Amino acid sequence: MARRRQIYEGKAKILYEGPEPGTIIQYFKDDATAFNAQKKGQIAGKGVLNNRISEHIFTNLAAIGVPTHFMRRLNMREQLVRQVEIVPIEVVVRNVAAGTLTKRLGIEEGTQLPRTIIEYYYKDDALGDPLIADEHIACFGWASQEEMNDIADMAIRVNDFMSGMFAAIGIRLVDFKLEFGRIWENDYSRVILADEISPDSCRLWDIKSNKKLDKDRFRQDLGEEAEAYQEVARRLGLLNGESEGEE
Amino acid sequence: MARRRQIYEGKAKILYEGPEPGTIIQYFKDDATAFNAQKKGQIAGKGVLNNRISEHIFTNLAAIGVPTHFMRRLNMREQLVRQVEIVPIEVVVRNVAAGTLTKRLGIEEGTQLPRTIIEYYYKDDALGDPLIADEHIACFGWASQEEMNDIADMAIRVNDFMSGMFAAIGIRLVDFKLEFGRIWENDYSRVILADEISPDSCRLWDIKSNKKLDKDRFRQDLGEEAEAYQEVARRLGLLNGESEGEE
Ligand SMILES: Nc1ncnc2c1ncn2[C@@H]1O[C@H](COP(=O)(O)OP(=O)(O)O)[C@@H](O)[C@H]1O
Ligand SMILES: Nc1ncnc2c1ncn2[C@@H]1O[C@H](COP(=O)(O)OP(=O)(O)O)[C@@H](O)[C@H]1O
Ligand SMILES: [Mg+2]
Ligand SMILES: [Mg+2]
Repeated sequence: MARRRQIYEGKAKILYEGPEPGTIIQYFKDDATAFNAQKKGQIAGKGVLNNRISEHIFTNLAAIGVPTHFMRRLNMREQLVRQVEIVPIEVVVRNVAAGTLTKRLGIEEGTQLPRTIIEYYYKDDALGDPLIADEHIACFGWASQEEMNDIADMAIRVNDFMSGMFAAIGIRLVDFKLEFGRIWENDYSRVILADEISPDSCRLWDIKSNKKLDKDRFRQDLGEEAEAYQEVARRLGLLNGESEGEE
Repeated sequence: MARRRQIYEGKAKILYEGPEPGTIIQYFKDDATAFNAQKKGQIAGKGVLNNRISEHIFTNLAAIGVPTHFMRRLNMREQLVRQVEIVPIEVVVRNVAAGTLTKRLGIEEGTQLPRTIIEYYYKDDALGDPLIADEHIACFGWASQEEMNDIADMAIRVNDFMSGMFAAIGIRLVDFKLEFGRIWENDYSRVILADEISPDSCRLWDIKSNKKLDKDRFRQDLGEEAEAYQEVARRLGLLNGESEGEE
C-alpha cells in the first residue's frame, strides 16, 4: 500500500491527500492548543469525538441547504472532505459575551449580547489572528464583497440552526468559529463551509449550571476536558454504537 | 472676573465651559502622550500650532460643506467650539500602512494601501482603544447605522480634501484620526466633526524625503518634534503674523 501524502499538519488536525482529486482527508488529533499555541496539551479521545460531532453538524447543515466540504466519515478519526482554497478569515459568531470580547471591550463574561455579532479575524498564527473589519478584507482582497455576503448569510444560518440544536439538548451556544473555502466550478468559484465544528471551535455552556462543555475547560485549566466533550457527543445522541470509545 | 469652569482635562487639551450655552472652549496644551499615555512628554509650542492648524483645516472643511464644531479661535491656545455629545469612536482613515496597522497585519510601513481603509476604535483609554467593527458599534448602540453612514461619508470627504491640501505642500497624508459628536436640534440629532485635526492626529510625511512631520517623532524619539509641527504650519502658510510664536 502506497503511503499517502501529508499535505499539512495543523494544531488539531492533519490533512492528507484524498483518494480522488479535489478531496482531502481530515485526521482529527487529540492535541489541544490555546492562546495561539502558547499552551499545548492533549485531551484523550478528543479527535474521535470531534470527528463524529463535526460530521453530525455538517450533515445536518447540508440538509438545511448550507453547502459544506463534508463528504463522508472514513473511520474514527478521519473524514473525507472536498478540498477548498481556505478563505484566510476566521468567522466568529457571538451570542453571549465570552473570551476575547470580554477583555477587548470590557464586557462581563456571560452577558447576553443585545444582538448577535459576527467578527472576522485574519487567519495568521504569526500575527496572533488579529481582529479585522470588512474594510481590511476589501482592501487586501482576502475575499470579495460577494463572498463576504455569502459568508455572513451562511454564518447566520449556522447560528440559527445550531442555537436550536443545542438549546434542545440543554446547551447554550455562546459563540463559535467558522472557516470557509472556495471551490471552483469551471470559471466560477463559490464559498462553502469548511474545517470543523466541535467543542474545540464552539463555546457551549450547560443551560442550567453554566458549566463549560468546550475547550475553555482546557484554556482555563478547569479539568474534565474529555468528559465535557463526551457529554456534548452524548447529548447529541452520538455515543451509541460505532462511534463510542477509542479506535 | 468669575473663574470659568473646567469640564474635562484630557491628554492634549482642556475643555472649559464656553461663554454661551452649548459652547465650550478647547485649550491646547503642549503635553504629548503616546502608547495610551504610557509615554508622556511635552513638545514646546505644540498647543499653539495645533490650535492654529486645526482652525485652518476645520475652517476649510466647513467651506466645502463638512459640518464641524469649530466656531472661532479665541487666542493662541484656545478656540470656541460647539459642545457635542462625543460619539465614543475614533475614526481612523488610512492611505498608507503605518502604526498599528503594520504590526497587526504584518504590512511594511510605507506600503501604499490598495484602497483607503476606514477603521473604528472604541474610545476607551482603560481598554486601550480597541479596534472594533461595524458589528460591535451596532450591537452596543454606540452609533446608529445612519450616523455611521454620515460619519463614513464625512471621513472620505475629509480624506479627499486633506490629501489634496497636503499634496499641494509636498506632504503625504498617510493616515489620520477623527472624532465626531452629536448635536441636537429640537428632537433631531446629527453628527458633526469635532475634536481637532493636527500633527497630533495625522501622520504626515514629506513627499520627497519621507521625513515624518507628526507625532511619530515623539512616539519614536526621533527628535525635532517642535520643528516638525512648525514646518507643517509654515507650509500651510500659518506662520506669518498673529499666530507666530508663543503667547
Ligand atoms: N476542505 C478543506 N480544504 C483545505 N483546507 C482545509 C479544509 N478544511 C479545513 N482546512 C484547513 O486545514 C487546517 C485544519 O487543521 P487545524 O489543525 O485546524 O489547523 P490550524 O492549526 O491551521 O487551525 C486548517 O488550517 C484549515 O484552514
Ligand atoms: N465639541 C466637543 N464637545 C465636547 N467634547 C469634545 C468636543 N470636541 C472634542 N471633545 C472631547 O474633548 C476631549 C479633548 O481633549 P483631549 O486632550 O484630546 O482628550 P483625550 O485624552 O480624551 O483624547 C476629547 O475627549 C474629545 O473627545
Ligand atoms: Mg484550526
Ligand atoms: Mg484626544
